[in-house]
Amino acid sequence: MAAELTARELIARHRPTLDQALEAIRTRVYWSPHPEHPKAYGEQGSLDAAAGKAAFDALVGTRLDLGQPGTDGFTGGEVSPYGIELGVTYPHADIDVLLPAMRAGQRAWRDAGAEIRAVVCLEILKRISDRTHEFAHAVMHTSGQAFMMAFQAGGPHAQDRGLEAVAYAYAEQVRTPDTAEWTKPQGKRDPLALTKRFTPVPRGIALVIGCNTFPTWNGYPGLFASLATGNAVLVKPHPRAVLPLALTVRVARQVLAEAGFDPNLVALAAERPDEGIAKTLAVRPEIRIIDYTGSTAFGDWLEANARQAQVYTEKAGVNTVLVESTGNYQGMLSNLAFSLSLYSGQMCTTPQNLLIPREGIRTEEGPRTFDEVVADLARAVEGLLGDDTRANALLGAIVNPDVKARLEAAAGLGEVALAAREISNPEFPGAVVRTPVIVKLDGAKPDDEAAYMSECFGPVSFAVAVDSASDAVEMLRRTIREKGAMTVGAYTTDAEVEGAVVDVCLDESAQLSLNLTGGVYVNQTAAFSDFHGSGGNPAANSALCDGAFVANRFRVVEVRREA
Amino acid sequence: MAAELTARELIARHRPTLDQALEAIRTRVYWSPHPEHPKAYGEQGSLDAAAGKAAFDALVGTRLDLGQPGTDGFTGGEVSPYGIELGVTYPHADIDVLLPAMRAGQRAWRDAGAEIRAVVCLEILKRISDRTHEFAHAVMHTSGQAFMMAFQAGGPHAQDRGLEAVAYAYAEQVRTPDTAEWTKPQGKRDPLALTKRFTPVPRGIALVIGCNTFPTWNGYPGLFASLATGNAVLVKPHPRAVLPLALTVRVARQVLAEAGFDPNLVALAAERPDEGIAKTLAVRPEIRIIDYTGSTAFGDWLEANARQAQVYTEKAGVNTVLVESTGNYQGMLSNLAFSLSLYSGQMCTTPQNLLIPREGIRTEEGPRTFDEVVADLARAVEGLLGDDTRANALLGAIVNPDVKARLEAAAGLGEVALAAREISNPEFPGAVVRTPVIVKLDGAKPDDEAAYMSECFGPVSFAVAVDSASDAVEMLRRTIREKGAMTVGAYTTDAEVEGAVVDVCLDESAQLSLNLTGGVYVNQTAAFSDFHGSGGNPAANSALCDGAFVANRFRVVEVRREA
Repeated sequence: MAAELTARELIARHRPTLDQALEAIRTRVYWSPHPEHPKAYGEQGSLDAAAGKAAFDALVGTRLDLGQPGTDGFTGGEVSPYGIELGVTYPHADIDVLLPAMRAGQRAWRDAGAEIRAVVCLEILKRISDRTHEFAHAVMHTSGQAFMMAFQAGGPHAQDRGLEAVAYAYAEQVRTPDTAEWTKPQGKRDPLALTKRFTPVPRGIALVIGCNTFPTWNGYPGLFASLATGNAVLVKPHPRAVLPLALTVRVARQVLAEAGFDPNLVALAAERPDEGIAKTLAVRPEIRIIDYTGSTAFGDWLEANARQAQVYTEKAGVNTVLVESTGNYQGMLSNLAFSLSLYSGQMCTTPQNLLIPREGIRTEEGPRTFDEVVADLARAVEGLLGDDTRANALLGAIVNPDVKARLEAAAGLGEVALAAREISNPEFPGAVVRTPVIVKLDGAKPDDEAAYMSECFGPVSFAVAVDSASDAVEMLRRTIREKGAMTVGAYTTDAEVEGAVVDVCLDESAQLSLNLTGGVYVNQTAAFSDFHGSGGNPAANSALCDGAFVANRFRVVEVRREA
Repeated sequence: MAAELTARELIARHRPTLDQALEAIRTRVYWSPHPEHPKAYGEQGSLDAAAGKAAFDALVGTRLDLGQPGTDGFTGGEVSPYGIELGVTYPHADIDVLLPAMRAGQRAWRDAGAEIRAVVCLEILKRISDRTHEFAHAVMHTSGQAFMMAFQAGGPHAQDRGLEAVAYAYAEQVRTPDTAEWTKPQGKRDPLALTKRFTPVPRGIALVIGCNTFPTWNGYPGLFASLATGNAVLVKPHPRAVLPLALTVRVARQVLAEAGFDPNLVALAAERPDEGIAKTLAVRPEIRIIDYTGSTAFGDWLEANARQAQVYTEKAGVNTVLVESTGNYQGMLSNLAFSLSLYSGQMCTTPQNLLIPREGIRTEEGPRTFDEVVADLARAVEGLLGDDTRANALLGAIVNPDVKARLEAAAGLGEVALAAREISNPEFPGAVVRTPVIVKLDGAKPDDEAAYMSECFGPVSFAVAVDSASDAVEMLRRTIREKGAMTVGAYTTDAEVEGAVVDVCLDESAQLSLNLTGGVYVNQTAAFSDFHGSGGNPAANSALCDGAFVANRFRVVEVRREA
């Protein structure tokens, strides 16, 4: 088929961005080609706020037919955490038809080479970026994120993570040259001489299993890493968060077709209620790579059972902030209050356990007892969320009934230092909006351990009284080792305590944020610079994004012959 | 402790070699710092032939005490395939004492950083290189390789593979800078600014499970990849091939101590007869990485059961050479004859199945029938091995009774086109030396399939009559997909057949050598240029050596704070 988008055109359009991304992952300084501000959109083909909203509104109640082979019906039933029924239906696939169809275009995609694949991926990301406003509404109404967060985390930040994965994938593939002339001296005899050709080859079909809370942010790294390394990609969204990934698949299929490739290299696997197709797909012999974000139970199941595939998982962890001393007490309180509140604590990176010495902490304002610190933090959260408009903009909505149930049960776990407050959302009366809960626990009481040593996903934090800084350090170590952690935070002005915390994080492979008091929060990571997770503790078996995340998604095949 | 070898000295001594290795893996042209010729040794501190032989002789009958913690006895009982009892005993470890002791030095090794670790590894390799003559005898008398092969494959080629792993490990660790200053503009407000420190951290203790046939060549990549990425390494040799790896561990421990590190970062786990400690060690929680070369059964067991570890396996495969046509018939015959004979076919890369159309092949000398090709190949092998001195130098000895039994059983599988001939070794009368067997099978006979679709490790090849070139291509595809392959060879002058074979190898991830008629053989790969295995078919889950082989042996931990 004649490509509408030629290779030359795509390279001219995207090679500079690829080069900048390659430089960014090498230097890890700040960089992003995707604007964070909603007003930055609306020119050069991108949708502005009104057009994005209109595009989203036009989707509601429609059938999103992707033209996929093996479509044997349509399914869908997403209800926005803001109370709206989306009413969008998606193709349901007969996988015995769809999987073989996805393989049909793989040879051409493989033979296109790493650079073409990279720029096709960048074109997909560019088209998605142009529709960021539309995606923002789709992410908002599936994840429950507030609009601005859905816009940024679901838009530019997710696109950054996708681009970062493309950059790593490209860099990894071009580490080996296309060809080499190998000449080995043989003393007085003629040298041995071989011509060698090296080709990156894909593993097969990659499966992306999406999550409810960050369908694009957590879905894009695996999707783009696999596609850029030559694999076909089947996207199985969370049943409550299909729309953002269905739109992504639609864009990818369009771009692939326009570039002269088989659109079936990317496909959607939407499921009927309670069908549980992830389990079926995960063990299909055609599926050779799996990217998963979600519960530890299913992540562990995948790692144990999907033995035919490379499995990349982000599971649950218990994130800790150790509070020992600070030189900026108010800054610490407001930074922590924001971290606990953002998206109602429904981030895999939100702190859960705040370890505070029972004797209290040193601050530049003088000592503060354990109870004072907890009360001051509770007040900081109340202050941050005192205005309902602001609270709605920060909290978003509770994503699903499980989170709401956990939040309600949390009050029974210990002394409530901050109770959840119900907030109404005038724009979306159906939204369930709650401020976070802080519960006091005692690290010395065996009865409390069950609570603070389990992940309680949602807006629930535990202020855990510990005997000393070294007790806190040991509790941190045990928590990371046994339960895993996506993030660790610490506040200390004591070099010895800082050193001990750093050592624990290096020993147990956890990402550490120290003494954050300004506008950067422990639960946020920036693509091209910060690693998301470490891949070295039980919370995740891989990090976003590094060499290990891409290097095993393809293999290099060598063909050698005498020169 | 004061280091006898300073970091500065080690960097000055080895950084140029590291840089050359980094350039070699990037360009994949011929390069090696390790001389292949025995006469190249004897100056600048290296042992010459006589000194190396004397060093080996002095080892026989001794106790090799490595000074390891937890040594609860000594064990050993290697008998050379050449008939000599080595009588060397090695420390047996109480692993509940040894494993914790191996962790004691890990923090200092981690904190030393990637460059220091790399140059310490290079110093270990240099000391091993200096003793290449001694190692050659140790490899010869455990693997049964002939001296020259033991010298080259067990010496410089193994050292090359170790150095290659160090280069990949170093490159992977320095992809991320030590520090980054991250500054994100905030419009009119002050920018957000963070200082980030990135540290490669090891996974824990790595276990290397050695093999009988290539203790150093197959052992060094995993050993050095793990050590260079900061892990401690426990080496569990094959009970028949302990000495070469025990000597390796001894050198490593000496160098680590001299460089001021804990020698227990590298240790040996020799086992008592039938103790089977690999199975026990493999599932210990301290073991986080495993490198294994050996049977498919145990490799599969490791992959399924050592879930706490990253597992890198090289298992069995069925290597195929497709013979369709050639423009250099005699060159093809002599090249193949050499490949089948070298080390009595006891290489994981030796061709097993020769697929030949039953109607025969085209050659520049005119057509040859299937029977003629097989008879000509048999004659070529007979010619190559007609002189007993030369035969001994090429064949070496049969490594163990299992291989001998398989060889003897092969005659019962079909029509014998070339029978094994017993050769006496005047220098070592106890050696079991046999020329290879070629058995004719029919690809159309279901009864013959069991033979050619299983690995028959040793000097046994099957000449399989196939209906056509495309039949051969399909059989090749099925063999790789179902049984795996470390190597594939093909002889064809037909562009279409060549294209089909290339496509199969790209589709099924197998390394292909085309039309070799000179002094390079399908079963040989060169470090820094050729990949050994692909990691993409059932014969091995990793390749030597690429980014994927090293990238997951460490993780990167980030510590960030406000700038």
